[in-house]
Amino acid sequence: MNPFSVSDIVRLALEEDLGPGDITSRLTIPYKRRGRASLVARGDLVLSGLTAAVETLHQVDPTAVFTPLAADGDRLRPGAEIARVEGPAQSLLASERVTLNFLMHMSGVATLTAKYVAAANNPRVSVIDTRKTTPGLRLLEKAAVRHGGGRNHRFALYDGILIKDNHIAAAGSIAGAVEQARRQAPHTLKIEVEVETLEQLREALAARPDMIMLDNIGPEILREGVRLTREHPDPTVRGTILEASGGINLQTIGAVAQTGVDMISVGALTHSAPSVDLGLDWDFNAG
Amino acid sequence: MNPFSVSDIVRLALEEDLGPGDITSRLTIPYKRRGRASLVARGDLVLSGLTAAVETLHQVDPTAVFTPLAADGDRLRPGAEIARVEGPAQSLLASERVTLNFLMHMSGVATLTAKYVAAANNPRVSVIDTRKTTPGLRLLEKAAVRHGGGRNHRFALYDGILIKDNHIAAAGSIAGAVEQARRQAPHTLKIEVEVETLEQLREALAARPDMIMLDNIGPEILREGVRLTREHPDPTVRGTILEASGGINLQTIGAVAQTGVDMISVGALTHSAPSVDLGLDWDFNAG
Amino acid sequence: MNPFSVSDIVRLALEEDLGPGDITSRLTIPYKRRGRASLVARGDLVLSGLTAAVETLHQVDPTAVFTPLAADGDRLRPGAEIARVEGPAQSLLASERVTLNFLMHMSGVATLTAKYVAAANNPRVSVIDTRKTTPGLRLLEKAAVRHGGGRNHRFALYDGILIKDNHIAAAGSIAGAVEQARRQAPHTLKIEVEVETLEQLREALAARPDMIMLDNIGPEILREGVRLTREHPDPTVRGTILEASGGINLQTIGAVAQTGVDMISVGALTHSAPSVDLGLDWDFNAG
Amino acid sequence: MNPFSVSDIVRLALEEDLGPGDITSRLTIPYKRRGRASLVARGDLVLSGLTAAVETLHQVDPTAVFTPLAADGDRLRPGAEIARVEGPAQSLLASERVTLNFLMHMSGVATLTAKYVAAANNPRVSVIDTRKTTPGLRLLEKAAVRHGGGRNHRFALYDGILIKDNHIAAAGSIAGAVEQARRQAPHTLKIEVEVETLEQLREALAARPDMIMLDNIGPEILREGVRLTREHPDPTVRGTILEASGGINLQTIGAVAQTGVDMISVGALTHSAPSVDLGLDWDFNAG
Amino acid sequence: MNPFSVSDIVRLALEEDLGPGDITSRLTIPYKRRGRASLVARGDLVLSGLTAAVETLHQVDPTAVFTPLAADGDRLRPGAEIARVEGPAQSLLASERVTLNFLMHMSGVATLTAKYVAAANNPRVSVIDTRKTTPGLRLLEKAAVRHGGGRNHRFALYDGILIKDNHIAAAGSIAGAVEQARRQAPHTLKIEVEVETLEQLREALAARPDMIMLDNIGPEILREGVRLTREHPDPTVRGTILEASGGINLQTIGAVAQTGVDMISVGALTHSAPSVDLGLDWDFNAG
Amino acid sequence: MNPFSVSDIVRLALEEDLGPGDITSRLTIPYKRRGRASLVARGDLVLSGLTAAVETLHQVDPTAVFTPLAADGDRLRPGAEIARVEGPAQSLLASERVTLNFLMHMSGVATLTAKYVAAANNPRVSVIDTRKTTPGLRLLEKAAVRHGGGRNHRFALYDGILIKDNHIAAAGSIAGAVEQARRQAPHTLKIEVEVETLEQLREALAARPDMIMLDNIGPEILREGVRLTREHPDPTVRGTILEASGGINLQTIGAVAQTGVDMISVGALTHSAPSVDLGLDWDFNAG
Repeated sequence: MNPFSVSDIVRLALEEDLGPGDITSRLTIPYKRRGRASLVARGDLVLSGLTAAVETLHQVDPTAVFTPLAADGDRLRPGAEIARVEGPAQSLLASERVTLNFLMHMSGVATLTAKYVAAANNPRVSVIDTRKTTPGLRLLEKAAVRHGGGRNHRFALYDGILIKDNHIAAAGSIAGAVEQARRQAPHTLKIEVEVETLEQLREALAARPDMIMLDNIGPEILREGVRLTREHPDPTVRGTILEASGGINLQTIGAVAQTGVDMISVGALTHSAPSVDLGLDWDFNAG
Repeated sequence: MNPFSVSDIVRLALEEDLGPGDITSRLTIPYKRRGRASLVARGDLVLSGLTAAVETLHQVDPTAVFTPLAADGDRLRPGAEIARVEGPAQSLLASERVTLNFLMHMSGVATLTAKYVAAANNPRVSVIDTRKTTPGLRLLEKAAVRHGGGRNHRFALYDGILIKDNHIAAAGSIAGAVEQARRQAPHTLKIEVEVETLEQLREALAARPDMIMLDNIGPEILREGVRLTREHPDPTVRGTILEASGGINLQTIGAVAQTGVDMISVGALTHSAPSVDLGLDWDFNAG
Repeated sequence: MNPFSVSDIVRLALEEDLGPGDITSRLTIPYKRRGRASLVARGDLVLSGLTAAVETLHQVDPTAVFTPLAADGDRLRPGAEIARVEGPAQSLLASERVTLNFLMHMSGVATLTAKYVAAANNPRVSVIDTRKTTPGLRLLEKAAVRHGGGRNHRFALYDGILIKDNHIAAAGSIAGAVEQARRQAPHTLKIEVEVETLEQLREALAARPDMIMLDNIGPEILREGVRLTREHPDPTVRGTILEASGGINLQTIGAVAQTGVDMISVGALTHSAPSVDLGLDWDFNAG
Repeated sequence: MNPFSVSDIVRLALEEDLGPGDITSRLTIPYKRRGRASLVARGDLVLSGLTAAVETLHQVDPTAVFTPLAADGDRLRPGAEIARVEGPAQSLLASERVTLNFLMHMSGVATLTAKYVAAANNPRVSVIDTRKTTPGLRLLEKAAVRHGGGRNHRFALYDGILIKDNHIAAAGSIAGAVEQARRQAPHTLKIEVEVETLEQLREALAARPDMIMLDNIGPEILREGVRLTREHPDPTVRGTILEASGGINLQTIGAVAQTGVDMISVGALTHSAPSVDLGLDWDFNAG
Repeated sequence: MNPFSVSDIVRLALEEDLGPGDITSRLTIPYKRRGRASLVARGDLVLSGLTAAVETLHQVDPTAVFTPLAADGDRLRPGAEIARVEGPAQSLLASERVTLNFLMHMSGVATLTAKYVAAANNPRVSVIDTRKTTPGLRLLEKAAVRHGGGRNHRFALYDGILIKDNHIAAAGSIAGAVEQARRQAPHTLKIEVEVETLEQLREALAARPDMIMLDNIGPEILREGVRLTREHPDPTVRGTILEASGGINLQTIGAVAQTGVDMISVGALTHSAPSVDLGLDWDFNAG
Repeated sequence: MNPFSVSDIVRLALEEDLGPGDITSRLTIPYKRRGRASLVARGDLVLSGLTAAVETLHQVDPTAVFTPLAADGDRLRPGAEIARVEGPAQSLLASERVTLNFLMHMSGVATLTAKYVAAANNPRVSVIDTRKTTPGLRLLEKAAVRHGGGRNHRFALYDGILIKDNHIAAAGSIAGAVEQARRQAPHTLKIEVEVETLEQLREALAARPDMIMLDNIGPEILREGVRLTREHPDPTVRGTILEASGGINLQTIGAVAQTGVDMISVGALTHSAPSVDLGLDWDFNAG
């Protein structure tokens, strides 16, 4: 299974839910009966997951039609119509739960991201995600973060270099670890170092990585770290990208966003987003 | 991919996160360096997900060792040690994020379930899950519900018959739909009917299904529905299983649990559980 | 591979038979030559397997056309035309064997089932299948049983509870085993107990399962078992579903069907059905 | 899925039967309970399918042990012990049905083959199979034919060239079709031509293929065809392999085997073999 | 994954190159921008790989159009237009590299094969490939050899019998090994024996295999080997197919082709063919 | 199939070559016969591919043993022993061809890379690969480049941003394209721009990307481009990484390496490396 294929994760979700088939509909609904339904927002939300929703109905029945009336990233009010579906009634019912499960979860991620962006309230600061994603759903959840107005950190362990305490310990020093990475890594990847104190920040700046993650540091000290960087004696160091990280929530992100850091990463965007409420209004007299 | 294979979902999660490999560790940590770490609870939680965690480390490196110190279903306090891992440092670091992602999410589901069970506060009532699960994770999430003290509703569309309004409309009546299902379905499956009013409940009882889901009905009316059932003229109907469903939350479940229904189903158990906080305490001087 | 996907089992069958391709046709038949053929019954049969047949030709060549002239479940006489195929000659020949292998086997199951139903000769008794199916073909064989006029027992180990001697031994008693299952299983699943004597039947009835399988019991004793059940002192027990099982064949099913049991399960429907005779009449002057 | 992998077809069979798990055993049998069982022949049979049986138990539980006491190809009497299994009781029960389904079907094929070989009653004639195999099981069924004393025809469409009427029609003549195949095919493959009359046989012999299949021809004419070949004017033609085919059964194979043909192919070996009777004798007091 | 499926190897190649997507194009090219391009030969070449190229674009975007202007096997001069592609610009760019990688490699194999055929310069001798193919690409490389004017040896270990020194040693003698193979193998497969000296050739001829491979033998001795065979006392032996093999290159193949052998096998056709030069000329002002 | 799994590509290669099995060895070599062999270099080479070789034997037979005597990256002379294999003779022979196909190709890539590094003859310049890899083998080929002393460019379209003429045209200008990428891409990825003239280089430098690819530019102009960069008025621009690309071969790389560029990318490393010569010396008297 390809972790980058929406088609594959949809197939998996359908195998979970359909198995040998929807026995209730098979026994009670005539094979040729057709139906249609409106997919409707039941609360305020930022929409995400349409690609998976379209693919779900298509896999269940290529003759059924999914017509989107909104786009990923749209902010919707309760009652807003998101899409219409039309086709054989058995197919619509068989796809209903999986379609909703994708949309409710992904829109949940987008909606929570939008709340963090609003709370940060600073267009010069990016709210970014982490690798704390739901197993199997990273591609879709990272897209949902973008739909909610956030940006993405590295996708995985291979498309970015993030040097943490264990790496530093093994390499002997921050400078050593950065140097080893710089000498051997694909030159397309930037190098980030994680620090937890101003002392470590000074040492990190001396090693001249492309980015520095300031982990679990309060706004006061963060502000001092930003000053150390932007006024560093070596002019090529002053532009180092600074990322604040660690336990930042909707209450605290506003203060962090005022410290001068470039980015704030929030694990909760993907690991703790409650689902949004959506529903299907059916019309079986159709067709 | 087999939706019932823990091994397969772990493989998918690792493909997402590892791809061509953990480039940071490959460049900074000597190939032969070994390490060990303690997996520790950082908050109150009910544990779930150990099977996936064990499998994750095993797939990354069969020579590394995962030693559980607690079991799925255990209630843990902050600081409790959940497991120890030991092996090549590169392997431990490569598996860290996926291991935590499984445990944090599944323990989140188990922990939330335990809160609902506590709030229901009635040992004669079962708190049960729904099909509103995260795509790809149903098997593990349904286990997490059991670890939290809940029970499972049907797994999918094939192992239970649940007749809803659309099926009733297509079959012409509740009695017609129940009869069609009874005549043709595998006789191992029970038949449940969803109703939204007492009027429908009366009609449903006359059709003698095995179970009835009372959807979006307040505690007052629920209590009346229970009475109608338990005092039904036909003695074989009085034992019908009654399930309350629809928008029940931690605030309202207590009242519902006092109405006499047998089961309360809660979608939030699996679609809106925030993750719990876990961490790894590393010791790289080891080995 | 998804065990519930006709598309997947067809793909497997084609991989077996085609591998790198039909070398004979590639070397002797011009690439652009077209053909057509009639699929014809060569004996009396009940048709089953059309879905797989249609899918087979479609996978070999989406431009070829398979036009069914009969439906699964139809009873056909020798010479009856089942379908027509039309398209590139190489594609028709490459798909021929796999198409026939599916239809001959599945129609074999449906035809044998119809013989058992006829021999049972009692519309109040259902002839049902077992889990003794051909590895990889359960979904299609269970459909073939329905096409032949039979009904399905549980699909697999997960969609029904069947308590046998080993479970009873482990639980200590029939009552204990039934109680454990009732307390923990999804409430959508019925509970069946297997018994081999009237003594066990009495014990089972006291535990009030939903169904009882009477295994390897002759018609005389079966009749007595039925009486014990239908005249049970506890009125809720009288409706228990009774299934006769074990070594019942075309000679003996008639007597069993007169005993008053509800269902008769027959493993031979799927594990020993001889294939029916079908053929393709070709016309290569076409097109 | 690899059609040549026993491991893959076993995985598919287990996915069919286990899905999310054996719910009855999970609820009634303690997790740590161990058991053992003897696999016993319940009738006369030629054994086949042990590889799949061993793999089945291994996939369900690598800690369980399958000890064969007989070998594929062995002729066994009722009561003969085939194997012993030992391990966790839940694992043994979960694997039971799939293990038996493989062994009962494959031994059925081997046993029927042995009957045909005995009926042919001529050691100079090979009884061979066809491509009329059960979808997904060709590798195992072809092995079962060998275990029963038969030999294999080509495995599939790619490892042998068999020119039939449609190929001849497209190529214009037998000679033309043989020549096209000889000029282009991998030189490792032999060329066989199917004929239905002595007239066609004469034409085929002139084209000098490696083999000729005489389809649906009675023993009298077959004998004449053999004479035509063995006394052919061209000495290099006299050694042409002759295969009789088409509707030969246990009653008629004896006569065909006396005609001087080299091989007799029988589709029924794989498409209509009834399963043999096997059982497991359990002992749960063990371990 | 099916090793005979062009669709599968294309999917793998795209997973390698695309993963979560072409980030550069996603960020710089408007979603609705369309484009077109000409695929052009940049050197002399024999074309191969079109099937994979068509499939590549189709998998990336079914709405894009690939219009071939040449066919596999065509000999092209620099500047010749091979195909045109048209569709969404992001899709064309995302598919570009994989399309070229297939065409450059497969045309490299076809072009090198054509050079060997030209150097052999003898229409009575076939230039054939070996099993020294690139892992995963055997089906396409064997087709490329045919496009270049060569023929194929056996596809794999299962569709031809090639007895080498290890088999002879195990069987005790050439005659013993040939006899064992003849007695048990599917009769559709020819038997080839590898020899390295005239002494072994004489022994091999006595065993009457269908073919003999003369390995690492110079043209002089080869010629003598041909004479021994064609003038063999047993007339049925004189037609034995002779294959020269082992270290034959573009300089030496001419001499080998004059010795009277039927076939010359060359591993370099598939294991050392340099890729040809192809390019895409873009036009983004289009449509 | 996971494009990053050595295990998966080995499985594919074995499916290609083994299919239903090595029929020659099955028929001629006793099942219990054991053997051993030495894997020996037949020419000068840099070794690569050992991981796949070890995995190949392991998949064919987990009881066979592969003992490496050299490591990936080692420079070997003709006759050097690379590894020993020991186990069942049938298993060793069944794995032989696939093992050699991996080692011969990967060592071919490593050996050619080492030649380019030697010809560049400048330790301050890195020789790097491209995305012109063999479909399905990118992970192994990129490792082989490292074994030969080269470095890797981005792995695929997702782990680096490379802005080419089409992207520039769509974005309107180099500055526009760089700005769009910088604003939206994961901040872990560097941005590279491709230029073909000094004019474009000047424009690119003004946009301040992290890297610039100078495509198809001769050494004279390259030198001038390096000077423009290193003496740029903006000091933060002077460190821009410069990559020379386009048609550089073993004859021209030396001059390019003296121009002051940081990196030279060469497609031929992976798309046109001839395989190296390796062989197995067998000893079947063993064991």
